[in-house]
Amino acid sequence: MYLAGLDVGTIGCKFVIFSDTGSVVASAYREYPLEIPKPGWLELNPAIVWKNIVEAIREALTISKIDPGDLASLAVSAQGEAFIPVGKSGEVLYNSIVTSDSRAQNQTSWLEKKFGAWDLFRITGHVLFPVFTLNKILWIRENMPKIYNSTEKFLLWEDYVNWKLTGRAAIDHSLACRTLMYDIGRKDWSDEILETCGVERALLSEILPSGSVVGNITKQASLESGLSEKTVVVTGGHDQACGSLGAGVVEPGPIYNVAGTVECCMPAVDKPILNEKMFESGCASYPHVVPGKYLVLAYNANAGLVLRWFRDNLASEEMKESLRLQISAYRLLDAAAEKVPKGASKLIFLPYFTGATTPNWNADARGVLFGLALHHGRPEIFRAMLEGLAYELRHNLENLIESGVRATELRSVGGGARSHLWLQLKADVTGVKVVVPDVSEASSLGAALLAGAGIGTYKSIQDASKKVYRVKSSYDPDKSASSTYEIYYKLYKKLYSSLREAFSELSRI
Amino acid sequence: MYLAGLDVGTIGCKFVIFSDTGSVVASAYREYPLEIPKPGWLELNPAIVWKNIVEAIREALTISKIDPGDLASLAVSAQGEAFIPVGKSGEVLYNSIVTSDSRAQNQTSWLEKKFGAWDLFRITGHVLFPVFTLNKILWIRENMPKIYNSTEKFLLWEDYVNWKLTGRAAIDHSLACRTLMYDIGRKDWSDEILETCGVERALLSEILPSGSVVGNITKQASLESGLSEKTVVVTGGHDQACGSLGAGVVEPGPIYNVAGTVECCMPAVDKPILNEKMFESGCASYPHVVPGKYLVLAYNANAGLVLRWFRDNLASEEMKESLRLQISAYRLLDAAAEKVPKGASKLIFLPYFTGATTPNWNADARGVLFGLALHHGRPEIFRAMLEGLAYELRHNLENLIESGVRATELRSVGGGARSHLWLQLKADVTGVKVVVPDVSEASSLGAALLAGAGIGTYKSIQDASKKVYRVKSSYDPDKSASSTYEIYYKLYKKLYSSLREAFSELSRI
Repeated sequence: MYLAGLDVGTIGCKFVIFSDTGSVVASAYREYPLEIPKPGWLELNPAIVWKNIVEAIREALTISKIDPGDLASLAVSAQGEAFIPVGKSGEVLYNSIVTSDSRAQNQTSWLEKKFGAWDLFRITGHVLFPVFTLNKILWIRENMPKIYNSTEKFLLWEDYVNWKLTGRAAIDHSLACRTLMYDIGRKDWSDEILETCGVERALLSEILPSGSVVGNITKQASLESGLSEKTVVVTGGHDQACGSLGAGVVEPGPIYNVAGTVECCMPAVDKPILNEKMFESGCASYPHVVPGKYLVLAYNANAGLVLRWFRDNLASEEMKESLRLQISAYRLLDAAAEKVPKGASKLIFLPYFTGATTPNWNADARGVLFGLALHHGRPEIFRAMLEGLAYELRHNLENLIESGVRATELRSVGGGARSHLWLQLKADVTGVKVVVPDVSEASSLGAALLAGAGIGTYKSIQDASKKVYRVKSSYDPDKSASSTYEIYYKLYKKLYSSLREAFSELSRI
Repeated sequence: MYLAGLDVGTIGCKFVIFSDTGSVVASAYREYPLEIPKPGWLELNPAIVWKNIVEAIREALTISKIDPGDLASLAVSAQGEAFIPVGKSGEVLYNSIVTSDSRAQNQTSWLEKKFGAWDLFRITGHVLFPVFTLNKILWIRENMPKIYNSTEKFLLWEDYVNWKLTGRAAIDHSLACRTLMYDIGRKDWSDEILETCGVERALLSEILPSGSVVGNITKQASLESGLSEKTVVVTGGHDQACGSLGAGVVEPGPIYNVAGTVECCMPAVDKPILNEKMFESGCASYPHVVPGKYLVLAYNANAGLVLRWFRDNLASEEMKESLRLQISAYRLLDAAAEKVPKGASKLIFLPYFTGATTPNWNADARGVLFGLALHHGRPEIFRAMLEGLAYELRHNLENLIESGVRATELRSVGGGARSHLWLQLKADVTGVKVVVPDVSEASSLGAALLAGAGIGTYKSIQDASKKVYRVKSSYDPDKSASSTYEIYYKLYKKLYSSLREAFSELSRI
């Protein structure tokens, strides 16, 4: 008996078939292009994405050599915010506007005036930014009224795929909450927001708890994808929520830590944290895919992003060596950086290349290398960058802990979990043990566990997580290293305060 | 009729033969090794230096094809501070301890207690640091008493070479003043300092004005070097003073700007400037090689030094391209940086890799890259570095102007004068015209002019300068560029203030 998770992201999709003990049986990935019709606009063409989804499904089924009928169930792990306006006959009316699309500035200002950001935060758990589904639906209503008026449903990627596969558009609570139209207290679409904005509830999908049966694969979907009509589709969730489940973060204690382009730091909590500190620091709360639990989202948008910048701009030697040795350039940079003393020989890096995200929230902030001296070379700079990312993670952790979050360990996944140096740095800098779970695709695994729970393969979602959770490696904080980093961390935070005004002035030039 | 200048530096010596109109007839350069007997100690072996000097003289004479008897006179342009203890029979008793040797810390503290730095500044024109000859003579007395007691003369490189060539140890005022034993008001060795320190005046050379005849080449020196006994040796001066003369900086107005590893900014003035501002900012005054004039020395120790750091650590691609195309890597970096918008696309660089020199004087300061974003690459960083150096130069200029210095134009020489981008940046950032004199070896030329003035080839030293001074190229400030840089310059200065405390904290780690 097999389970599958379909992860639909911003640049690609992945279909992974698992055994019920969480082992990967087969996996297929397809990338699709982000379209940029105008500067600041970012869209996905739903037809192209769908074509890639069914190709990925077909390929994974073929590789797995399983009888498609043995795939008991599947669920979707979806990118947040992005949505598709669908017409009466099921036709796609416009491209899917994705998170980083920044067109909805005016609508964001309007929402701020209408509700106030603080009230929106208390209702939805989210701090008002132009990223959300609501802002962009309002943009469509103002700028493309014909499309708005023809729209039967605004579907996010979970409900869109569920609808394509089963004919039923169902969304779960974690993803619904990322629309800015969801009331986190009542756990339903917010009547207050919908009514004030004049958006009809009927335009949105029905919300089912994660792990609920949506339906069987339709004949049409079976023909397109090669899936069996016997396979059951179950509600999944927001990709980070599915990932947390895949990494065993199902109750307060361990913190989900995805280190990719962006680095997230997400505790599971018993209640949304809706205090002023979370609001000021931009930390959203939203329902977990685990019943009764919530997630708090703290993140650094400048993690892998700045390491890749370094690699692509300043490490051409390591890039060439990487090709010659067939070893990742990052591992070569790690090896050199490991030989550099703690504190990167007195070099400190602030990673805010695209602005500071949680907990500083400062769009004007930028990257800084502080303390440059003649003895610094590429290894010192790369180490300073990793250390800076670890300081930023610690700052996020501390900010969460001050609001009552427990942090027993960090569960690290993503590209960053391949760097022993970075993992040990996280442990030493935060003083918290870092554990790498034995899972390569946490979001797909989480979705598959929901799929299994939905059809009774597991007693519960928590039970599913316990069944498959295995530790691959762990990193204990080294006390002497921690005390060295303690000093640097203080200076790291001080640097940001000292430069705050200069950041504003730079942005005004 | 020919004249020559012998430049004796820290890492090499150069003998240049000129026509009396200042054209180079022949030139030879020899490098010698700096010895590091212990960390922080830096010495030159006088025997090795002397061997290289005579080799350079012989080679230049050979290349020139002139009759050695037609070389009418020569003078020495010498590095400051470095000295040689010589015994009764003329034997060298110890290596030459050079400027950057940092062993004389205790002696520096002792001098501070005995005189106070402010009083020493008023007497000598120099701010107390461990670099000076006096501090190191005191170190020898304390740590190598046998050598001290056997010493007949402590000779600097000008008087040492004069003595080797003519048998007469004569020093000029500009170099004498760099010992911290010279009274700039009385223009003589300072009795107050010598008596308080218990150093006998007889241990120092006689002081003659620059451009005074010392004597003819001895038979012995002629045999060693190939020079004719007919050639007259004339007092030269401190290398920066000779360079100022070579660049035509003989009276208030133009500023001597040498952009090498270190970038100097030296106006000629009518009187030493001994106010508190110059003391605080570390700007020394000392006699010029031009009668009745003085020089003020402002400098940035982190100029070519940081550009070389960038080239050697982060520009391996340009280095390879440089080898392939046989073009300087700096010119390749310039070409890319020229395409970057003014302000380096909002990237600001503080160059203090080895600490800030004039006017900030802060040993704790270090280099900073501020404003890093994804669109920055090597060209943006390199441009930011050049812009930072230009901001630092402007800061030095402003500091001098506030003490009454006139700045009609910058006379740029050194490696930096080969960069059109850097030269134009200096003009745009300072608002002062930049002129590159048509002289490749300003210090040697200055010495040769003194040699000529000493034997009556020129009416006076000023006249000598007028006879040979020619402009190679000039750069006028662009008003619109200046107003852009004005904004960045303000932020540049603010950044230093904002980071001052963090610099101290970093140094304390």
